[in-house]
Amino acid sequence: MKKTFFIAGGDLRQIYAAEKLSEFFSVCITGFDKNISIPDTLRSEESIPLCAAPSDYLLLPTPVSSDDVMLNAPFSQNGISISKLVSTVKKDGIVFGGKISKNVKKIFTAEGIEVIDYLDREEFSVLNAVPTAEGAIQLALEEMPATIYGSKILITGFGRISKILVKLLTAMGADVTVAARKYSDLAWAEIFGCKSISISRIEEHGEKYDIVYNTVPSVILGKSFLEKLNTDCLMIDLASRPGGIDFKAASELGIKVVWALGLPGKSAPVTSGRIIADTIKNILAERGAI
Amino acid sequence: MKKTFFIAGGDLRQIYAAEKLSEFFSVCITGFDKNISIPDTLRSEESIPLCAAPSDYLLLPTPVSSDDVMLNAPFSQNGISISKLVSTVKKDGIVFGGKISKNVKKIFTAEGIEVIDYLDREEFSVLNAVPTAEGAIQLALEEMPATIYGSKILITGFGRISKILVKLLTAMGADVTVAARKYSDLAWAEIFGCKSISISRIEEHGEKYDIVYNTVPSVILGKSFLEKLNTDCLMIDLASRPGGIDFKAASELGIKVVWALGLPGKSAPVTSGRIIADTIKNILAERGAI
Amino acid sequence: MKKTFFIAGGDLRQIYAAEKLSEFFSVCITGFDKNISIPDTLRSEESIPLCAAPSDYLLLPTPVSSDDVMLNAPFSQNGISISKLVSTVKKDGIVFGGKISKNVKKIFTAEGIEVIDYLDREEFSVLNAVPTAEGAIQLALEEMPATIYGSKILITGFGRISKILVKLLTAMGADVTVAARKYSDLAWAEIFGCKSISISRIEEHGEKYDIVYNTVPSVILGKSFLEKLNTDCLMIDLASRPGGIDFKAASELGIKVVWALGLPGKSAPVTSGRIIADTIKNILAERGAI
Amino acid sequence: MKKTFFIAGGDLRQIYAAEKLSEFFSVCITGFDKNISIPDTLRSEESIPLCAAPSDYLLLPTPVSSDDVMLNAPFSQNGISISKLVSTVKKDGIVFGGKISKNVKKIFTAEGIEVIDYLDREEFSVLNAVPTAEGAIQLALEEMPATIYGSKILITGFGRISKILVKLLTAMGADVTVAARKYSDLAWAEIFGCKSISISRIEEHGEKYDIVYNTVPSVILGKSFLEKLNTDCLMIDLASRPGGIDFKAASELGIKVVWALGLPGKSAPVTSGRIIADTIKNILAERGAI
Repeated sequence: MKKTFFIAGGDLRQIYAAEKLSEFFSVCITGFDKNISIPDTLRSEESIPLCAAPSDYLLLPTPVSSDDVMLNAPFSQNGISISKLVSTVKKDGIVFGGKISKNVKKIFTAEGIEVIDYLDREEFSVLNAVPTAEGAIQLALEEMPATIYGSKILITGFGRISKILVKLLTAMGADVTVAARKYSDLAWAEIFGCKSISISRIEEHGEKYDIVYNTVPSVILGKSFLEKLNTDCLMIDLASRPGGIDFKAASELGIKVVWALGLPGKSAPVTSGRIIADTIKNILAERGAI
Repeated sequence: MKKTFFIAGGDLRQIYAAEKLSEFFSVCITGFDKNISIPDTLRSEESIPLCAAPSDYLLLPTPVSSDDVMLNAPFSQNGISISKLVSTVKKDGIVFGGKISKNVKKIFTAEGIEVIDYLDREEFSVLNAVPTAEGAIQLALEEMPATIYGSKILITGFGRISKILVKLLTAMGADVTVAARKYSDLAWAEIFGCKSISISRIEEHGEKYDIVYNTVPSVILGKSFLEKLNTDCLMIDLASRPGGIDFKAASELGIKVVWALGLPGKSAPVTSGRIIADTIKNILAERGAI
Repeated sequence: MKKTFFIAGGDLRQIYAAEKLSEFFSVCITGFDKNISIPDTLRSEESIPLCAAPSDYLLLPTPVSSDDVMLNAPFSQNGISISKLVSTVKKDGIVFGGKISKNVKKIFTAEGIEVIDYLDREEFSVLNAVPTAEGAIQLALEEMPATIYGSKILITGFGRISKILVKLLTAMGADVTVAARKYSDLAWAEIFGCKSISISRIEEHGEKYDIVYNTVPSVILGKSFLEKLNTDCLMIDLASRPGGIDFKAASELGIKVVWALGLPGKSAPVTSGRIIADTIKNILAERGAI
Repeated sequence: MKKTFFIAGGDLRQIYAAEKLSEFFSVCITGFDKNISIPDTLRSEESIPLCAAPSDYLLLPTPVSSDDVMLNAPFSQNGISISKLVSTVKKDGIVFGGKISKNVKKIFTAEGIEVIDYLDREEFSVLNAVPTAEGAIQLALEEMPATIYGSKILITGFGRISKILVKLLTAMGADVTVAARKYSDLAWAEIFGCKSISISRIEEHGEKYDIVYNTVPSVILGKSFLEKLNTDCLMIDLASRPGGIDFKAASELGIKVVWALGLPGKSAPVTSGRIIADTIKNILAERGAI
């Protein structure tokens, strides 16, 4: 008999995760009673009534909650209280979710239920960098009056997102420079077809870029750097708070900055949902549970 | 002394062509007195008054005119009559333009002035396929709720645009199939990392695609093909009239079709304008004029 | 019942063509009685006795003959006379071969038998450019004391072989310049990640290249060009007679030139044989024969 | 005044390192008095007599020595004793070398001289993976009777060399599968255009590969895996001792194995030498010494 997976709250990603998990599990989904168009393939899943018995697994969204009390469930009419979810999962079951706070975690572990944050999985972050990079390309295509082909692009940092951006942008014929700290990252950037500069010397750097992508989550692109850019340079900040660009200085200089957060969920919810499902399958496979 | 280039009418592309030509010629531009924001670099050009003496060269837009009388000049307040432009160019000068009708051509040749349609230049079409392909990628990124990475894509035809689409989409990690007529094109498609099928057997083909790009300007994707697709397949028609998709059948089947014409001008006017300028420079270089 | 294919003479390529054709036809092979090691999979084919009845099709090698009398059959002990082969194929059969001379052709057509030279097929030339390009890469790897990554490479001409070389060398991280005549080819070369120069100005070109690949079959790289190269530049001529390099001048200047002819047969006989078989299958498919 | 660099022993790589370092330092080289052809550009360096005064820096080869007494100096007529080199470098100088044993290190540190093994630098290993990967491609091109295009290739491990091999082989049109342990590495392999399998299940894997590259330095490809391969599969082991292939079993099964060690020095000594020089420059730049 198939194990059961209860899926609660979240946005479109959660629906697509449910769709993918339904290949392996008997899936039951809740929190989508407000006006939302759901893909055909899941319509049947939706009609499943709330599982009578507790499930083997429970999937919560990213982030699980903003106040540690109510579930993040924008498509639920009446809202879902997290404490009510405890009884929907077996004592030896597992709760999965993203950005789970200590308090929320305690609600389940107090009952002996294991809690796993899939954001801690490296393969999740790797796979999620693909929709982020594609979303970053889309932004450039939408905002630039010129082609990416032939444009001069600076990317700061050389983590997961940068590596995929480098792959896409060099294939599109851009002239890409990577600014990074470690010599080995500079070496990799060159091997993958870019120029490279030390991030410590970025302010000395007088190149005129058409696009600057930042992936470093600390303000490294300050006024003296921004002043060297053309005012029609497009800046796209992909880093989480506080971002890497001195927004105030950019604004004063008339340079357009797009701060792009949460791209995977926005630009490719299908893929993002599938990545959540794949990561959970990996976790369960490691434990011999599937 | 620099030769003179008079530039009349058209849209943003014309302005960027002017900007690029101004590196080689003394440029004078007209037809942009209606509300339009012009890049800083050209502001000075704009302020140049109508050239007193006839120019060596005249650049008209694409298309030159819709009625063979008035110039295509959407940013001109009062409109520009083509016949008035004859006197702005020297008798031994050259008029450049795109999609020049026989009647318009005659207006100039009757005065002994040579007329060249830059759309007839192969390198123009090759270079212009780049913004078209990038625009086609942008459409997919905007319309698809999944990533291009991992998606199944069909491209019909293997001309200039298809070749560049293949380059971009395979680099993005799509699973691309090319449908073409000639065995040699099928061979090229495979060499460039695609699967290939004969276009004559496309209707037998049961694959489930996420995106179908058509580049063939005759209706080859009829009802029996469309019925095999998932309804969430995205169809993007890049071919000129009449397009390659049976729009009526697609609509009845609930399949989304985007007919994308004139992408270069819309998505990358800077690049499109520069391509016009580069093509004109090639023509003049061949004649030893620059 | 399967149609019959008689395969006579040639080298390893002929054996691999036989192997591939045996998937569709009842194959009989002759001309390999001299010491030669044949892959396991064909051993059974080899033991087939000379077909008693005339075959539907006859496959001759490339080139078919050097004297229009004896078949090119280097692995045959006693040699095979072409005139003797006429009776091995049906009157309404087809003879396939490469570089078939008028005289040889007449030997068969005089009996009403159709003769097709597969070298005339565009897809054959396209597919064959792959083993040629890989062989050209192998030569560079063997002869150069440095990596292709980071090296400066010039490619003259932009035909089939050049296009594939460009794909491979840019992916390997070389800095590639293409010299071609047509503006549209220069545009394609740039789109595929190269620099481009007009072949007419190649002699003015002072760049210091690590490798020069020539694909143009007329001497375009003369003394004044060669004098600009470093003496440790490696020149690889992939063009057929007379090649594109002034060999005498190169020798006087101490520049190493490798004239690489017939690479597909030498470096990848398996692939070359399969390409012959695939081309024949295309020809027969077009006629509805398979 | 330029700092001085004394370079002792080693093979061609050492000469090319000297050549590159001579751009920044006053270079003096020794240990090449036996028959060896040296590139023109260094001939002048060679004629420099043994530095009278101690140098700022001393460069030893990789490995520095096999017996902790005599320097690894295959091109030296009479051999060079390591203890004699102590006086060639200043007390506050630095000795660089590769695979420096504790005993050799002590010879210098006993005199207060700092010793740095450049093999410990991550960027050195990254850059050196390029000539290794190119050498691995060359081996496949030389040993295979078919093209890399269209061949099925397995790569075990996903370290530096594998990542570059993946880049090259996918660009060449191979069908590449990566076997790795970590889910995140499998994700990266897929993102870079490969299939992926868990290395723990490799023995279950029945695919028929044309080439298997191993990069894992422990025997993971045992008899039960080898038995599933075709006998014409080419195995290339790039891992250091003990390699990853059960050589005895492969030999019994008639499968060809090439154990390729020290590829950078063999296939691209120019590049390898430059990488040594670049790494040393990075080390000195970090310390503000250049």
